[in-house]
Amino acid sequence: MREEWTGFKGTHWRRDVNVRDFIQSNYEPYDGDESFLAGPTEATERLWGRVQELQAEERARGGVLECECEVVSGLTAYGPGYIDVEHPELERVVGLQTDKPLKRAFMPYGGIRMAQQAAETYGYHVNDKFDKIFNEYRKTHNQAVFDAYTPEMRAARHSHIITGLPDTYGRGRIVGDYRRVALYGIDFLVEQKRADLANCGDGTMTDDVIRLREDVADQIRALAGMKEMARAYGFDISRPAADAREAVQWLYFGYLAAIKTQNGAAMSVGRISTFLDIYLQRDLAAGRISEQEAQELIDHLVLKFRMVKFARIPSYNELFSGDPVWATLEVAGLGQDGRHMVTRTDFRFLHTLENMGPAPEPNLTVLYSRRLPEAFRAYASRISIRTSSVQYENDDVMRPVWGDDYSICCCVSATQTGKEMQFFGARANLAKCLLYAINGGKDEKFLDKRTGRHLQVGPELAPIQGEYLDYDEVMHKFDLMMDWLSGLYVNILNLIQYMHDKYYYEAAEMALIDTDVRRTFATGIAGFSHVVDSLSAIKYARVRCVRDEEGVATGFEVEGDFPRYGNDDDRADEIAVWLLRTFITKVRKHHTYRDSEPTTSILTITSNVVYGKATGALPDGREAFVPFAPGANPSYGAEKNGLLASLNSVAKLPYEYALDGISNTQTINPGALGHTEDERVRNLVSVMDGYFANGAHHLNVNVFGVEKLKDAMEHPERPEYANFTIRVSGYAVKFIDLTREQQLDVIARTCHDRM
Amino acid sequence: MREEWTGFKGTHWRRDVNVRDFIQSNYEPYDGDESFLAGPTEATERLWGRVQELQAEERARGGVLECECEVVSGLTAYGPGYIDVEHPELERVVGLQTDKPLKRAFMPYGGIRMAQQAAETYGYHVNDKFDKIFNEYRKTHNQAVFDAYTPEMRAARHSHIITGLPDTYGRGRIVGDYRRVALYGIDFLVEQKRADLANCGDGTMTDDVIRLREDVADQIRALAGMKEMARAYGFDISRPAADAREAVQWLYFGYLAAIKTQNGAAMSVGRISTFLDIYLQRDLAAGRISEQEAQELIDHLVLKFRMVKFARIPSYNELFSGDPVWATLEVAGLGQDGRHMVTRTDFRFLHTLENMGPAPEPNLTVLYSRRLPEAFRAYASRISIRTSSVQYENDDVMRPVWGDDYSICCCVSATQTGKEMQFFGARANLAKCLLYAINGGKDEKFLDKRTGRHLQVGPELAPIQGEYLDYDEVMHKFDLMMDWLSGLYVNILNLIQYMHDKYYYEAAEMALIDTDVRRTFATGIAGFSHVVDSLSAIKYARVRCVRDEEGVATGFEVEGDFPRYGNDDDRADEIAVWLLRTFITKVRKHHTYRDSEPTTSILTITSNVVYGKATGALPDGREAFVPFAPGANPSYGAEKNGLLASLNSVAKLPYEYALDGISNTQTINPGALGHTEDERVRNLVSVMDGYFANGAHHLNVNVFGVEKLKDAMEHPERPEYANFTIRVSGYAVKFIDLTREQQLDVIARTCHDRM
Repeated sequence: MREEWTGFKGTHWRRDVNVRDFIQSNYEPYDGDESFLAGPTEATERLWGRVQELQAEERARGGVLECECEVVSGLTAYGPGYIDVEHPELERVVGLQTDKPLKRAFMPYGGIRMAQQAAETYGYHVNDKFDKIFNEYRKTHNQAVFDAYTPEMRAARHSHIITGLPDTYGRGRIVGDYRRVALYGIDFLVEQKRADLANCGDGTMTDDVIRLREDVADQIRALAGMKEMARAYGFDISRPAADAREAVQWLYFGYLAAIKTQNGAAMSVGRISTFLDIYLQRDLAAGRISEQEAQELIDHLVLKFRMVKFARIPSYNELFSGDPVWATLEVAGLGQDGRHMVTRTDFRFLHTLENMGPAPEPNLTVLYSRRLPEAFRAYASRISIRTSSVQYENDDVMRPVWGDDYSICCCVSATQTGKEMQFFGARANLAKCLLYAINGGKDEKFLDKRTGRHLQVGPELAPIQGEYLDYDEVMHKFDLMMDWLSGLYVNILNLIQYMHDKYYYEAAEMALIDTDVRRTFATGIAGFSHVVDSLSAIKYARVRCVRDEEGVATGFEVEGDFPRYGNDDDRADEIAVWLLRTFITKVRKHHTYRDSEPTTSILTITSNVVYGKATGALPDGREAFVPFAPGANPSYGAEKNGLLASLNSVAKLPYEYALDGISNTQTINPGALGHTEDERVRNLVSVMDGYFANGAHHLNVNVFGVEKLKDAMEHPERPEYANFTIRVSGYAVKFIDLTREQQLDVIARTCHDRM
Repeated sequence: MREEWTGFKGTHWRRDVNVRDFIQSNYEPYDGDESFLAGPTEATERLWGRVQELQAEERARGGVLECECEVVSGLTAYGPGYIDVEHPELERVVGLQTDKPLKRAFMPYGGIRMAQQAAETYGYHVNDKFDKIFNEYRKTHNQAVFDAYTPEMRAARHSHIITGLPDTYGRGRIVGDYRRVALYGIDFLVEQKRADLANCGDGTMTDDVIRLREDVADQIRALAGMKEMARAYGFDISRPAADAREAVQWLYFGYLAAIKTQNGAAMSVGRISTFLDIYLQRDLAAGRISEQEAQELIDHLVLKFRMVKFARIPSYNELFSGDPVWATLEVAGLGQDGRHMVTRTDFRFLHTLENMGPAPEPNLTVLYSRRLPEAFRAYASRISIRTSSVQYENDDVMRPVWGDDYSICCCVSATQTGKEMQFFGARANLAKCLLYAINGGKDEKFLDKRTGRHLQVGPELAPIQGEYLDYDEVMHKFDLMMDWLSGLYVNILNLIQYMHDKYYYEAAEMALIDTDVRRTFATGIAGFSHVVDSLSAIKYARVRCVRDEEGVATGFEVEGDFPRYGNDDDRADEIAVWLLRTFITKVRKHHTYRDSEPTTSILTITSNVVYGKATGALPDGREAFVPFAPGANPSYGAEKNGLLASLNSVAKLPYEYALDGISNTQTINPGALGHTEDERVRNLVSVMDGYFANGAHHLNVNVFGVEKLKDAMEHPERPEYANFTIRVSGYAVKFIDLTREQQLDVIARTCHDRM
């Protein structure tokens, strides 16, 4: 019995690494309201003030404060770093990615050229010695992937029919169970991993066994590195955390290890609130800390999550605008035993948006259910209305699949904490695929440099010839083209995941995940609503092709009306369900790396703009090269029947077909929700209760009018817009950090003025 | 039609990479004698004189002239280097491993600690910056292997039941088809590899396809590096070689690429003589060069092979004594069409041992058959008698298996040139395995550090209890223990080969081998004769166990006589055949990396001393911890019936059971062969004709008396011993470069005084 565990109940978790068992044995559900919450301490205000100054400076310098040029990021690459070196005592939670706040690390393993280019973009020049080291001595993930790509893969990447591939940076989306560092300390975790290594394979050295043995050896090395990293800050994390402050600090060290070694697009924090609440309540009950001190710990932890940054290249920023890191962090949800998992600390996390104002990170996610306590649902809605910084996911559809200890590993995708990892990558542009079906694999935008004619990217199937599109013919060709695309896509991902494991393995994160890990293989869809509406147009109206001199259909004229996705009209919505089901079924046909389980998603982040730019006009009337609707959202202007009808359409998509997530982003004019804040809160709770009861998966809630957006776009310097945060597809972003193109896209989206 | 190919016949080889077809279409068999040969030129004498000075200096400095400490070896790591920088024009063939002759390169990829230790051994200190680079940024092969080893594997390695594993340096044994550089030039080879890459896989990205695609991409990169390397010397190898000098130079550049990037134990040159002869004869016929110039080219090429060196650690030198590199080079052999393949250049290569005196490298190998021209057989025998620097392998047993264009890839192992690679590693100590069978897996020498008792290495099978060993019981237990050992051994190799591919892939060598490569998986046996004789003793005499206080048999007393292997006695020789057949059959049971084909060998190099040192007393009467007989040799003192009887015993081992080779090393007193050199030549030819006609695989021929060895051991400083070369198991070595222990072992071997 460890002294640090005094007062904790339960047995299983003491013997084996089992954080869920610890949580279920020890947490206290909280049914009260937010009245207990404490405001920010002076230390919090000073630190957050300093960070805001730095952020302003960062913005003034074009988006990046400083880039590292001399040190390769790693667990022990730096000594300790503080927000304010003259007052390190202010920080209740210590630890920076580099030696200075907001200084971006040099992370070459994903790709040395990209790391160099990222620094160059902001006026820095990486020490030339790394050029030799990471080109000659050490191959990077990027080099390896491009070594193995086929010409077909390069063409598909070039034409953006598949894009956003993690072939130049970390794949991300792996959530280490950072709570393990706090509950067990490193030494116990090393002991367990050593036992796993001893038990890995029966002696027959197949490639799989060898690979896993090396993985575990690397994990053990990473655990030792974490100890050393913490020691630089004066902490000994070899043993379990003894109190709440240590628990918060230890957990953060685990996360810090991840962001020092990986620059994945999504570097999520995971489901930590109920866990930390157990430590906080133990200290509060014993009178060792006050509520103000408890809140301060959470505020400072969140402050650290708000500071996570990576050096990115311009093309990355175009895809994922606003410098997001998806430090996603969940609150609420229900347990398998029927108890809700809301604790005071779930309130405390939401309260950080009041104590320190709105912020895009951490990507706060409420695991929603009608069965959550009313006071909590109301408080979350109130915070949404005030900050537009919260997203909601349906715990009632996720819990049956992922249990009651899942985390969100990116924007909306669930993963069992400490038991799973995800092979993630990119999206298939199904709207372009539809055009390829019509045009026999010829790209409507990109030309063959040699011949000057449309580039042949897809298979040279016979194109559709008729003037008017025939639904059955289109469906047949589309089926064939999706066959091709899904296979190519899965195999590009197979290749990328193999190389990522080989050249950029996430040892620090995987060290905090079970050795016998379940692996999902996450694909994604872009252009969803446009395909649905296009097929509906072809079926229910008459679509005439406008062809260029090569015979490629580059424009469509729709004669007559047709049902659109987003209006609770089954004629369109059934096509949506068919499309999703067909795509995931085709994906499942293929071999997937390390016997991973294929899933898919309908979420685009802000990449809907980039995908749209690469895609010609569509039969639904969308013009060429303009943004797609994001995620699973209905197309701009399609929603004619108000918010609830739109939500009903999206809710019809079965979560089982898209276990990686179905992202829906809605903006509601405050006036549409009610006349007073209390009324708005009540209405928003009722909207979400209904939406999620219908089986929907996700909702980004924005509450503001278009005027505010337009004003912020024109006057970004105004202080009230410095932290003006909005939810976009799957994450939150400071509106003024978006490119103008992205801002215009957000403004163009439907803002519901009526329910 | 390339201009460089003017005068060459044949078609297939012009379209595809097919050096064999080129050779068969163009070579002229030579039936004459050695009278046409030319002596050394002044340039040859000056260069060889300089190299001998450097070698003397090297010896004076403890074995190494200089170690690189600042530059990581690579294709383009250095500018040009010359033997005599003031007279580079002397060298008809240019190119050094580093910037100076005999300076040893820094090659960290196999293992940084070993590379550092090798330099330290000779008083050099590698720049500390590499410590960080090859520990933090780039994992080495050695680190990776030890990451994945199981405790059982470490124990087996520690006890030397399996030893000589290539886990700290390159695995070697891959022979690039260096002739391709000369015949085709780099650009054509790149074009072919690009076509292979395009044809690699059907789009389904399984691990195997991904790995191979990356391999080929690395090969293409290596080909580009070779061009750049040659350019530093002023040569453009993008095109085919236009004349003999270029052909020799181009070919050497191909080999130089291998030894700049890999430090495998064996870095063989391959079968190049018939190929080069075609170029030499074309130039001779056209009057462009004289015989003296032709010989000079071959002399200078051989001079370069004599200079190949790697930085090794002391434990490596113990295993493979005398600084060998196995720059193995073949002459003679027969073609599938029945013509012999002896050319004037085969004579020229042997003649280098006269022009520049005896030398251990290149490891000159005659592919022998009675059907070779008599004049050639006589000349080779004469060179053997004069220099003891030649080995013989039976072309009549190898040709049916490997065709007529195989190379010897190490000491004696055949591999199809340009079509195969070998996963090589180490030997299983079957003598120790027999002791484990008797002692229930307990090691007779090594103690458990914790308990002080005999270390349990093998499975804890019930030990044999009786005072006298029962043959059937021993055979049963030995069978079980070989089951265990063969499985463990194969799986250690699986792991090592996987990691070698991952961390130390031979891109430059594999670039000169077909993409669709055949892979053999070469295991090996140590202690062969002792197991045979021990089993014979148990069967035909009475063997009493002497046990220590733990009950472990540490001594054996043999009562009565028994037949021994090496006397042409079927009772013993049948056990030998059974043992070999049983071992390879057990090896074949197991999964082998990359679906490679298992083979085995009976060859120990000089490691028979190290294996013996780790192995206790045996039932055949061999004392504890003394050397084993090398390779497939009968045990020291066992041969009672003369040379021919000994050869007959070895010849009974079917080559089909040991496709990796059966090495036999014999020393014959000159007097036993005849009274005059001519008589000795005739007798040696007749001995070999008979031996190989019996189906034997290999023979190392030494012709000298024990007195000469003893004198050389005591007076190594005498000039006549500076290049005194002897054949040991599978290679040649300068006698004075052996450790005293090895010298005593050589002296102890049977020197046949009668036929």
